[in-house]
Amino acid sequence: MLSKNKIKFINSIKKKKYRNQHQCFFVEGEKLVDELLNSDFKVIDLFATKEWIDENYGSLNNICAIEISDDELAKISSLSTPNKVFAIVEQKSISYNIDDVSENLSILLDNINDPGNLGTIIRIADWFGIKNIFCTNESVDVFNPKVVQSTMGAIFRTKVHYVDFAELLNEAKTFDDFNIYGTFLEGKNIYSEQLSQKGFIMMGSESHGISNKWKSFVSKKLFIPNYPIDTKTSESLNISTATAIVCSEFRRNVI
Amino acid sequence: MLSKNKIKFINSIKKKKYRNQHQCFFVEGEKLVDELLNSDFKVIDLFATKEWIDENYGSLNNICAIEISDDELAKISSLSTPNKVFAIVEQKSISYNIDDVSENLSILLDNINDPGNLGTIIRIADWFGIKNIFCTNESVDVFNPKVVQSTMGAIFRTKVHYVDFAELLNEAKTFDDFNIYGTFLEGKNIYSEQLSQKGFIMMGSESHGISNKWKSFVSKKLFIPNYPIDTKTSESLNISTATAIVCSEFRRNVI
Repeated sequence: MLSKNKIKFINSIKKKKYRNQHQCFFVEGEKLVDELLNSDFKVIDLFATKEWIDENYGSLNNICAIEISDDELAKISSLSTPNKVFAIVEQKSISYNIDDVSENLSILLDNINDPGNLGTIIRIADWFGIKNIFCTNESVDVFNPKVVQSTMGAIFRTKVHYVDFAELLNEAKTFDDFNIYGTFLEGKNIYSEQLSQKGFIMMGSESHGISNKWKSFVSKKLFIPNYPIDTKTSESLNISTATAIVCSEFRRNVI
Repeated sequence: MLSKNKIKFINSIKKKKYRNQHQCFFVEGEKLVDELLNSDFKVIDLFATKEWIDENYGSLNNICAIEISDDELAKISSLSTPNKVFAIVEQKSISYNIDDVSENLSILLDNINDPGNLGTIIRIADWFGIKNIFCTNESVDVFNPKVVQSTMGAIFRTKVHYVDFAELLNEAKTFDDFNIYGTFLEGKNIYSEQLSQKGFIMMGSESHGISNKWKSFVSKKLFIPNYPIDTKTSESLNISTATAIVCSEFRRNVI
């Protein structure tokens, strides 16, 4: 049973201000909650239909599931087809190990605004074993319900950090054999470039590309060529599409 | 000036039933209208702010632009930030040349539902010079405003056909040296397979994959490996992400 106050609280944390105030976020649907229960994120409250609780009783460990009706579920759900279960989850303070970052690939997102794109990129990073994603402080919040939804659970396996890019990029200058890659219209054909298994892959926003202030940090400018080269096609690819192709190129020779 | 009836009509064609009845669709925003005016699609009506008309007078040819106010624009717009201009455009009856199809790459989408994904895939196809996209009749309508928007103009340069897959796939059996490629969890590593410059690239829906009834037509089963192989990551990639990587792999050796 959901009290009016609880419904109000749950709906409030769909907004960033209240999420931050209460340091929690909202996770919805069978697939995502399944991934959540297999992660080290801490569940504050879990609400589910009787059917879901009966089926998943064994995987709940010490989490107390509160039974709700389909009508109550529909009142909370952000999905067009409400899906049996949702949870309130504690935001985890996430840090990175600088030695780890200097020896591996990470993704840097310069002012990403669209929640669906951020979620999709987190999923891509997870697929290609890229643990750390760095966003500028102005970017969309990783705990936005649409971001969480479009990660399809990858949010529980990757680390998204909001940082000062100037500091991070200056620190990266001290790393050994470390490149900062970025995509530019005037970059070199990514298919014929040698790509390292450590470095930063910087992606700019769709409308503005990589900001002028970070351009000088990029040591390898890349370009995904269209086909046939020099024909009139779309001016660019969507940011998550471009990130997918770039990550695939980095990993294809070591898989 | 927009009459109430005109506003009603324009809003009605955001729905498939009325789009089909009137054989037209809705195109919005500077970038898309610019691509529209450079295409062979026929504009029925074009509405724009005074500012836009003053700037674009020269590229209008014989199209009569109707001036509207910002308030009128906001009443029609589907965008969070209304963008100066929109047009009502005639749906074009699109056909394909079977010899052309048998000598090139095409994309086949098995029941794609999400408008954003279809739009993004059209943009990918355009980028990689894939002219024809075939959808099952149950798929989302290409003239849905969200599809049109997310193509970013690629809709005016590619051809999307709604067809009976059984007929098309049976016809493809008669083509010379023609493969039907599909992605499957049990497929072969796409990075090490030889990929032809003619064939069908079949992508299944995100939740159900390629339908059982079409599986037997697939002659080359492919898989995008995750990294490191055999680690626990996301179960799959988003359909437009996967399509981007697959198309990039097909073209990378001939670019």
